[in-house]
Amino acid sequence: MRIRVVNPNTTRAMTDLIGRSARVVAGPGVHVDAVQPTTGPASIESHYEEALAAVGVLEQVRLGEAAGVDAYVVACFGDPGLDAARELAHGPVLGIAEAAFHAATMVARRFSVVTSLGRTAGRAHELLDRYGFARACAAVHACEIPVLALEDPTSGALEHVTAACRAAVEADDVDAVVLGCAGMAAFTGRISDAIGVPVVDGVAAATTFAAALVRAGLRTSARSEYAPPPPKPVPGLLGGFAIRQTSAPALPVA
Amino acid sequence: MRIRVVNPNTTRAMTDLIGRSARVVAGPGVHVDAVQPTTGPASIESHYEEALAAVGVLEQVRLGEAAGVDAYVVACFGDPGLDAARELAHGPVLGIAEAAFHAATMVARRFSVVTSLGRTAGRAHELLDRYGFARACAAVHACEIPVLALEDPTSGALEHVTAACRAAVEADDVDAVVLGCAGMAAFTGRISDAIGVPVVDGVAAATTFAAALVRAGLRTSARSEYAPPPPKPVPGLLGGFAIRQTSAPALPVA
Amino acid sequence: MRIRVVNPNTTRAMTDLIGRSARVVAGPGVHVDAVQPTTGPASIESHYEEALAAVGVLEQVRLGEAAGVDAYVVACFGDPGLDAARELAHGPVLGIAEAAFHAATMVARRFSVVTSLGRTAGRAHELLDRYGFARACAAVHACEIPVLALEDPTSGALEHVTAACRAAVEADDVDAVVLGCAGMAAFTGRISDAIGVPVVDGVAAATTFAAALVRAGLRTSARSEYAPPPPKPVPGLLGGFAIRQTSAPALPVA
Amino acid sequence: MRIRVVNPNTTRAMTDLIGRSARVVAGPGVHVDAVQPTTGPASIESHYEEALAAVGVLEQVRLGEAAGVDAYVVACFGDPGLDAARELAHGPVLGIAEAAFHAATMVARRFSVVTSLGRTAGRAHELLDRYGFARACAAVHACEIPVLALEDPTSGALEHVTAACRAAVEADDVDAVVLGCAGMAAFTGRISDAIGVPVVDGVAAATTFAAALVRAGLRTSARSEYAPPPPKPVPGLLGGFAIRQTSAPALPVA
Amino acid sequence: MRIRVVNPNTTRAMTDLIGRSARVVAGPGVHVDAVQPTTGPASIESHYEEALAAVGVLEQVRLGEAAGVDAYVVACFGDPGLDAARELAHGPVLGIAEAAFHAATMVARRFSVVTSLGRTAGRAHELLDRYGFARACAAVHACEIPVLALEDPTSGALEHVTAACRAAVEADDVDAVVLGCAGMAAFTGRISDAIGVPVVDGVAAATTFAAALVRAGLRTSARSEYAPPPPKPVPGLLGGFAIRQTSAPALPVA
Amino acid sequence: MRIRVVNPNTTRAMTDLIGRSARVVAGPGVHVDAVQPTTGPASIESHYEEALAAVGVLEQVRLGEAAGVDAYVVACFGDPGLDAARELAHGPVLGIAEAAFHAATMVARRFSVVTSLGRTAGRAHELLDRYGFARACAAVHACEIPVLALEDPTSGALEHVTAACRAAVEADDVDAVVLGCAGMAAFTGRISDAIGVPVVDGVAAATTFAAALVRAGLRTSARSEYAPPPPKPVPGLLGGFAIRQTSAPALPVA
Repeated sequence: MRIRVVNPNTTRAMTDLIGRSARVVAGPGVHVDAVQPTTGPASIESHYEEALAAVGVLEQVRLGEAAGVDAYVVACFGDPGLDAARELAHGPVLGIAEAAFHAATMVARRFSVVTSLGRTAGRAHELLDRYGFARACAAVHACEIPVLALEDPTSGALEHVTAACRAAVEADDVDAVVLGCAGMAAFTGRISDAIGVPVVDGVAAATTFAAALVRAGLRTSARSEYAPPPPKPVPGLLGGFAIRQTSAPALPVA
Repeated sequence: MRIRVVNPNTTRAMTDLIGRSARVVAGPGVHVDAVQPTTGPASIESHYEEALAAVGVLEQVRLGEAAGVDAYVVACFGDPGLDAARELAHGPVLGIAEAAFHAATMVARRFSVVTSLGRTAGRAHELLDRYGFARACAAVHACEIPVLALEDPTSGALEHVTAACRAAVEADDVDAVVLGCAGMAAFTGRISDAIGVPVVDGVAAATTFAAALVRAGLRTSARSEYAPPPPKPVPGLLGGFAIRQTSAPALPVA
Repeated sequence: MRIRVVNPNTTRAMTDLIGRSARVVAGPGVHVDAVQPTTGPASIESHYEEALAAVGVLEQVRLGEAAGVDAYVVACFGDPGLDAARELAHGPVLGIAEAAFHAATMVARRFSVVTSLGRTAGRAHELLDRYGFARACAAVHACEIPVLALEDPTSGALEHVTAACRAAVEADDVDAVVLGCAGMAAFTGRISDAIGVPVVDGVAAATTFAAALVRAGLRTSARSEYAPPPPKPVPGLLGGFAIRQTSAPALPVA
Repeated sequence: MRIRVVNPNTTRAMTDLIGRSARVVAGPGVHVDAVQPTTGPASIESHYEEALAAVGVLEQVRLGEAAGVDAYVVACFGDPGLDAARELAHGPVLGIAEAAFHAATMVARRFSVVTSLGRTAGRAHELLDRYGFARACAAVHACEIPVLALEDPTSGALEHVTAACRAAVEADDVDAVVLGCAGMAAFTGRISDAIGVPVVDGVAAATTFAAALVRAGLRTSARSEYAPPPPKPVPGLLGGFAIRQTSAPALPVA
Repeated sequence: MRIRVVNPNTTRAMTDLIGRSARVVAGPGVHVDAVQPTTGPASIESHYEEALAAVGVLEQVRLGEAAGVDAYVVACFGDPGLDAARELAHGPVLGIAEAAFHAATMVARRFSVVTSLGRTAGRAHELLDRYGFARACAAVHACEIPVLALEDPTSGALEHVTAACRAAVEADDVDAVVLGCAGMAAFTGRISDAIGVPVVDGVAAATTFAAALVRAGLRTSARSEYAPPPPKPVPGLLGGFAIRQTSAPALPVA
Repeated sequence: MRIRVVNPNTTRAMTDLIGRSARVVAGPGVHVDAVQPTTGPASIESHYEEALAAVGVLEQVRLGEAAGVDAYVVACFGDPGLDAARELAHGPVLGIAEAAFHAATMVARRFSVVTSLGRTAGRAHELLDRYGFARACAAVHACEIPVLALEDPTSGALEHVTAACRAAVEADDVDAVVLGCAGMAAFTGRISDAIGVPVVDGVAAATTFAAALVRAGLRTSARSEYAPPPPKPVPGLLGGFAIRQTSAPALPVA
């Protein structure tokens, strides 16, 4: 089974981190393919960047379809381009926010989210509503650490995030924590050991759930909403993204 | 006051239609500026097209900011790129689905939506939840008429949409109908006359509400979520969309 | 266009304040008509007073219909008599709580309410649910300043309300504030300048939205719930409020 | 124990019917006092009439307080003036819609409402939301029988209402029915026998629950929202409703 | 009328306490029958114990049916076995959490719960959702006093619970408190006197509401969900609980 | 990895069917252990049977803990004893209704449930609310086929269930179907092939998700709600279920 984990931003170090996180949990018989778009923002911390990043996600899903990928993970906590990717892919597609919320409610009644920047909390709340987990999530807390600083060992990020997680458990009286940024994936085990409750990394959750769906024979419904998009002209800069009549996918970018 | 109405698709005839619909209701002292992106799909009937169209919306908002626009309308019923546009614009930004839902609940307790294609109903439900109108909306019905066929006088679209609206009022026991596609804007008055209940066109609603917000001195909060996106590199095809350190907006496309 | 702004209480100074607030934002071509009932409580701070005030609102709407008014604003934050007024009026009717909630969600994802007395918070929560904004509102805070003291320049009301708004933004992590009393209308601009987020006054929001609905050709549906009330005897003190068979509205009070 | 059942309309025959319905279920030691206002509409079928009727309810609660009443029932399915009555009364106050919804969920998971006129369904939905029973109620159906025709033995009302209840159980797959009008109280047992599921009359439910609250020592909280309304001038027609400084209640009407 | 109050645990002192609490409020003509199972945990503080206790509740309801009981109260705040008991009983069955939530919303808009151990709060939240009171409940607070210590006069339990109730009213801005454990029933009046708001004990509420339902002629619907369970073999330890073809209930335990 | 799939009823053929369904999807390295209780009803079609079955589930989880099981599946669509099992198990525990709902929303926006008997629909709705999927589920439909008849090849069950699934997709406009009974597990692939949308069997979903949680290092939080139940006496028939002070689990039944 081949699972493509798409890092929606264009920072190689984050793609590598995400790939490692996914491979650790994938299990026997699952090949993880960690990729990033050829275009898009270096990190995603605003709605504007998320809109640009969605284009890159779609590029990598179209390429993945040509390469025979079985399932996809969209590895940014805003789940950019998720529904559009479902229209393109034959197999299942999971966002890491989506998967993390599902996993958290399987191991605890209520959880809190600890994320990077406070300005992303609105999107997190929107996704909680969208997926049905608004009541299960007690609060969304921000560390105010930019995404790309998370990996800097001199930033003290691990300590800050751990403290924020511990504080959330006490203040919100929750039994689990969801990490609200793919850049925190490497911290998961250490934070869980430190604070004694399940800590959910969306990359791990989405990768194992995607493999689970494939094993259970489940793929996105192609009946109506998620049927392939209709062929149609796309003038201008994004012309490479036009869906053509032939079934062969065009290469989306030069 | 200058309001820019952005048609997110690249079909000139629809931009013209939307502009006419907006100008009819704008009122004294309001200049309506109807524009379309230089790139993007010819119409928007899938999540994939919506993701591409969001890029075009952002292009036109950035150009609008350089031109001193006071408020924006995103004139596609999926409200593509709405939150991202709010980060870019100094004045308010409204989506036509958003505005139509608000307006409908001001003139009726419950409404139904009549839209173009059934595959877009999922997005409509998502937006109803997002804006708080899930309980106020009884149902979303589709005519299964493609967006660009709506303007074809030989398509019988007006008759089909009118019949669908009338059926919705009876079947759902609602007191108003929201038209779920900017391409239906020209039908509004005739359908309302025919079926005897308020029929809400999002282009008209969004244009007059945008002017109302400007008059009331209200603009999108810049405190946290909708603060301007941070400057950041964007490699590749979308490089023109990078936010630069200087306050002057770059021209997004060549 | 003629908009009647009804102050539901019987204090002339508040009617004047509300009229000024409405006229500032009404825009070209809109005549604002600020009125108050001939009977009812001097201010509205309880459910009991709200019930009495609803009668006065209906009196002024019936008189407004005879005078050819195009739209109405009910200018008390409990929106007293709103649904009943919709049955009487040909044009749209907006409550100031209703309009303020709509406006706040157009410029911010979440908001808090700062109101006069804590005992009115229950009604505010009820209206948030009624209009679909329960999730968008983080909290309702009270200053414990009686309504009629708000205008007393020696009361320190502006400072107290400003401090409460600032505290709400921080404590609730919201990006906008709704002022929960028509008596605070004159404070809006100064508080917004002081705390740096949109501050929504319902009188301004309702006045501009009412004009927007008229321009968009929208009026309350007369299909079922909001059809004119049936003619019927009303014995006793309220006899002047009986609906008569003739279409000419009776003068409701001597 | 003395329970005052207030018929909010001014039709004596309905007051008598409501009194009989309450007395049948009140149980030993409970005196039922069925009253009606001195002013107000002959029946309540619109928001406008409900607003007028609320004044009459408050009149009768003030008189009841002077007479030492232990608990009140507001016997119209729109629950007019309920929150205001709670501010005036020392003991508990229940609306018949409120009580019927509570009772229905104690004997079935889901129920439907069968009411008089379709135009009242909006208010029923609002109350279902207000009290927390929106999910428990499958649908609100109308018989389109005016309130005062319900008691006319030649109207066929019993047969129509029975048929509507039976249809609701099948169509909505519910296990109980709530009758949405005090005028249907006399039908309850016969409909339940005919269709084989619990049929809930709000007058019976509210009367027995009010007695239950008194026996359990529970009365409306006077802490904040439902504290007595503050003394305040009321000029004009409604002057008799002013709350005076002295604790003795004024006679509300001449 | 005969009401059986079932203590789901096997501690005699608690059964006696619950019986006394019920008898104080039952009113004239109501015989209270306080019982406990022949098997099950000594107290209920976990989901595991609740699952075991449900079996004991069903034993006592089957015996009650043989003895002609008119209505039942399940007197543990987790409402164990409630839906199953409804299938067995001819008359109504109420849980004490259920009844307490209903009662609290009849005397206040919002309430908080003060319970024994924090680990039971999850179940309380689940029941609040189940019955429709999630929005009406501000918070669930725990005293961390084990159930059986509540009755120990040297434990200081009354003082701790009173302090927790007072703190909840202030912190949550609620107008009533629900006691989250049958073991607190004896404290109700004293806490209410001390903190000045209604304090709701579920045993009292359920007993008086159960009598009210019987007086109103209401019993659990036997149409579908709560019809008697079908006869079926039960091998092994629980064999005494098999439903037999004959209408006579088997004695469930030796 | 060892996953114990617990059939909560005592019918061997169903345990075998469930075991086969789980093994087909488990994947490399996962050992599936299909078991059933020593006591409990032959099938589960009522709340009463579910309450009895919960005891059997707990028996098998306690035995599984002694045997070193890594994760559990509770294989009845009412998820009996699920929360209690979480308190006993070191690894994750999933119910098949729970898992099926999660899976369905990963491959479609909305789904319907097709179940065995209509009387079980109430429990399905309760679980949909409990897990956050009430809005995602359009409807619950019953075939009125008893659980044990599902496997009888002469019953026409496959044809009936297929027809019900097809009808649900059209009537409810949903893109996926959840099978509401473990006894339908063998039908999954054939129904999906016949109707062309994803059909979700909870046994498959729960088995692969349980393995996914183990791979991702996630287990039920032991912080508060799901901590091990406290040691406590259990007199009488269920005495074998008492939790003893020593860490070694007692054999629950003779």
